[in-house]
Amino acid sequence: MMMAKAKEYAAACAKAAKVLARLTTAQKNAVLSDMANALRQSHGPILKANETDMANGRDKGLDNAMLDRLQLTPARIDAMADAIDFLVGLPDPVGERRLVETRPNGLKIEKMRIPLGVVCMIYEARPNVTADAGALCLKSGNGVILRGGREALQSSLAIAEAMRPALIAHGIPGAAITVIDDPDRELLLALLKQIDDIDLVIPRGGEGLIRFVTEQSRIPVIQHFKGVCHLYVDKEADLDKAFNILMNGKTQRTGVCNALEGLLVHQDVAETFLPKVAKAFGEKGVKVHADSATAGYFAGAELMGEDDYGQEYLALEIAIRQVPDFDGAVAHIERFGSQHTEVIVTENNDTATAFQQQVDSAVVMANASSRFSDGGELGLGAEIGISTSKLHAYGPMGLEALTTEKFVVTGAGQVRE
Amino acid sequence: MMMAKAKEYAAACAKAAKVLARLTTAQKNAVLSDMANALRQSHGPILKANETDMANGRDKGLDNAMLDRLQLTPARIDAMADAIDFLVGLPDPVGERRLVETRPNGLKIEKMRIPLGVVCMIYEARPNVTADAGALCLKSGNGVILRGGREALQSSLAIAEAMRPALIAHGIPGAAITVIDDPDRELLLALLKQIDDIDLVIPRGGEGLIRFVTEQSRIPVIQHFKGVCHLYVDKEADLDKAFNILMNGKTQRTGVCNALEGLLVHQDVAETFLPKVAKAFGEKGVKVHADSATAGYFAGAELMGEDDYGQEYLALEIAIRQVPDFDGAVAHIERFGSQHTEVIVTENNDTATAFQQQVDSAVVMANASSRFSDGGELGLGAEIGISTSKLHAYGPMGLEALTTEKFVVTGAGQVRE
Repeated sequence: MMMAKAKEYAAACAKAAKVLARLTTAQKNAVLSDMANALRQSHGPILKANETDMANGRDKGLDNAMLDRLQLTPARIDAMADAIDFLVGLPDPVGERRLVETRPNGLKIEKMRIPLGVVCMIYEARPNVTADAGALCLKSGNGVILRGGREALQSSLAIAEAMRPALIAHGIPGAAITVIDDPDRELLLALLKQIDDIDLVIPRGGEGLIRFVTEQSRIPVIQHFKGVCHLYVDKEADLDKAFNILMNGKTQRTGVCNALEGLLVHQDVAETFLPKVAKAFGEKGVKVHADSATAGYFAGAELMGEDDYGQEYLALEIAIRQVPDFDGAVAHIERFGSQHTEVIVTENNDTATAFQQQVDSAVVMANASSRFSDGGELGLGAEIGISTSKLHAYGPMGLEALTTEKFVVTGAGQVRE
Repeated sequence: MMMAKAKEYAAACAKAAKVLARLTTAQKNAVLSDMANALRQSHGPILKANETDMANGRDKGLDNAMLDRLQLTPARIDAMADAIDFLVGLPDPVGERRLVETRPNGLKIEKMRIPLGVVCMIYEARPNVTADAGALCLKSGNGVILRGGREALQSSLAIAEAMRPALIAHGIPGAAITVIDDPDRELLLALLKQIDDIDLVIPRGGEGLIRFVTEQSRIPVIQHFKGVCHLYVDKEADLDKAFNILMNGKTQRTGVCNALEGLLVHQDVAETFLPKVAKAFGEKGVKVHADSATAGYFAGAELMGEDDYGQEYLALEIAIRQVPDFDGAVAHIERFGSQHTEVIVTENNDTATAFQQQVDSAVVMANASSRFSDGGELGLGAEIGISTSKLHAYGPMGLEALTTEKFVVTGAGQVRE
C-alpha cells in the first residue's frame, strides 16, 4: 500500500516537473517572487503551526540545539523569503546551449543544459529546508519531494501551503513542490525505490540518516557523511596567517561541517607556532588531543594514539599532530580526512599547488579559512547540499548541480556510412 | 566470506587508483602504448584461452550471435590494440584547471578535474570490453574492476594477463586493472556493496542485467536500459532527407541501440512519403507495425493498439504512426521513448529548435541519422557506455565522464567574518 502511495506522489511530481522544465527564466522568477511575498504575508499560520511542532518537540524531550533549529520567528520567515528573492537574481542554468564541435561530416554537436527531473530531499528538523529546497528546485526547473522529519512536519506543511498558491496562479501543478504529510518510515522506504520517477535523493542530516538513505535507496544519493577538515601549517607558512586561519576555522562556529577538526604542523615550525596557539586555545577553552611530541605545549592535552585521529568534534576541541614533512601531512589527510575541505598555509606557491593537486577532497584551499567552504562563499549563490562523493557533483552544490546536459545534434541530412 | 573477498578486491583497486591519479599524461600514454604492443604480441595465449571459452560456449548452447561476440581472431585482437593506441592521442581531461571567479574578498575559486576513483564494469560475453574499459579507465586515471560473464572469463583473463606487465613495468600495482576471476553471483553482489572503495558501476548488457545491477547496487549505477529511438518526419520535412535517414536508421545495422524503432509521420505528408517507404521496406524485408491510418500503405502490416508502442525490435521491424501535429509527435516520444536518441527531419529551423528543446532524451537530433548517436561519432573519441539516466552523465560517456571536478581555492590569509 505504501508502495502505491509512493508511486502516486512520485508520478504526480514527475508530471509537474515536465511543466517546470518548459518554463522560461522570467516565468520561474515571477513564481519565486510571488512565493517570497506569500511567505512574508503568512507569518500567522506558519508561526501557529510551528508552535504545535515546538510543543510536541518539548514534550518529546528534544534537546535545545534541535529546538533552536526547529523554532521559527517572524525574522526567520522573512529570511526564508529573502533567500528566495536572492534566487531570483541568480542566473538560470537551464537552456544554456554551447557548441562542442562541428564534426568533419558537418554535424554540429552542442550540449544543452536541462533539469534533472525530480529531486527528493530527506531531512530532519529544519523547516527552512522546505522553503530553500523548494525554491532552488523550482529555479532549476526540477520537481521536488520534501520528506522532512516528524518534528517539523506542521511547520513544513504550513510553509508549503503558503507557497502553493504562487504555483497554481502560474499554471503549475501543486505537486511541483510536494510535501510528504505522512512521516511513516515505510513510505520513505517506498519513495526511495521510485527509480522511474525520482532522479536524485539528497539527505541532509546526521551520518546515521545518510547511511540509512544510502543503504535503502535505489535512486542515486548525494552523500555527505561528515566534515573532518584539516589545516596543514607548512614549514614555509606565514605563521600569522596560519594562526588567524586556525582560530577562524576552529572557534568562529563549531557545529558546522566546515569547521577545523585537525591541525597538522610541520615539525620545523612547531616550536615557534604552537606556544602562541596554546595560549589562544587556553583563553578560548579549546580542548586539545595531541601526539606525544605536541601534547607538552598544551595544558591538559589528551594524548592521541596512532589510530585515534579522524574525529568530527563539532565543538571547541581539536586534534593536533606534528608531521615530519609535506608528504606526512598529505598521508595523514588521505587516511583521516573526510573529502570535505582541506587547507594548507604556505608562502611557497609550488607547495600550495602540490597540495591542491594531491589532496583528494571536494574543496582544497591554500591560505584561506575552511569556513569559506560553502556554496555562498564559493560563488554558487545558494546551496542545496554538499557532496563528498564524486559522482555528478563534488563539494557544495548550487543550481547547476541540479541540472544535467543533453546532446543536441544538427545536420543537413547526413547518414552513417 | 564473499564480502571479505569483495572488500579485498575493491580496497586493492582503490589503493592502485591513488597511484593512477597522480600519473602524468605522458606516463599514462606510455603505459597504454606498451599495453597495445603487448596485446599484438600475445595472439597465441589470448586465442588459446578464447578457444576454451568458445568450446564451453558451444557446449552450453550459446546462440550464434553470442558466439560471434565471444570469438576473438588475430584481427580482433589487433583492433583492440589499435583502439588503445587511439586513446593515446586523445586529450587527458585529468588535471585541467579552470578559473570560476575571483570573489570580492580576493579568494580565487577554480575547479580542477580529477579521476572518479574506481569504476566497476559488469558485462556479459564481450571479451573486448576488458581491453577497452581497462584502457579508458587508465587514461582517465581510474582503477577498474572488470567483472565479465562466465562465458568470456578465460579470454578476459588472458587479455588482462597480456596487459599487466605494462602496469608493473611503470610502477603501477596490477590491481589497477582487476579482472574478477570468480564469476560467482554472491561475489558480484558483495562487490556492489563496496561503497567506500568503488565510485561507479557501469553495467553493459541486456535490460535484465542492468535492472539486476540497479536493484542490488549501493553504488551509483549508470543506467542504459534500451534504445527505442524515433524519427519524426515533420510536415515541412525534406522528404528525400527523411527517407535516407529512415533507411539508414532502420536498416544499416539493426541490433544496435541507436537503430530506429519508431517512425512518426505528420499526417500532411503521409500520402507523399509512405508509399516510397513501403516500397523500400518491402525490398529490404522490413516488418511494419502501424496504426489504422497507416497500415494500408504496407503489405502485411500488423495493426498497433494505442498502448502497444515502445518496443525495441533490434531487427528489421518498425512501428509507424501518423501524428496530427508536432505536439502529437513530442507526446508520443515522451510516452514511448527511452531517453536515448530522438530525431526530427524538418526544413523549418524553429521547429527543429523546438524539438531539440522539448524532447527529453540524451541525444536529440535534427536532420541527421540516429546511427550517429555514439561516443565516436559525437566527438568523444571513445565510449565507455551510454547513460539514459541523468545523474552525472546523460548520453554517450567518454573520458571526461569518467572524471569529476574538485574546488580549488587560493587566498592570501582570508578568514570569514
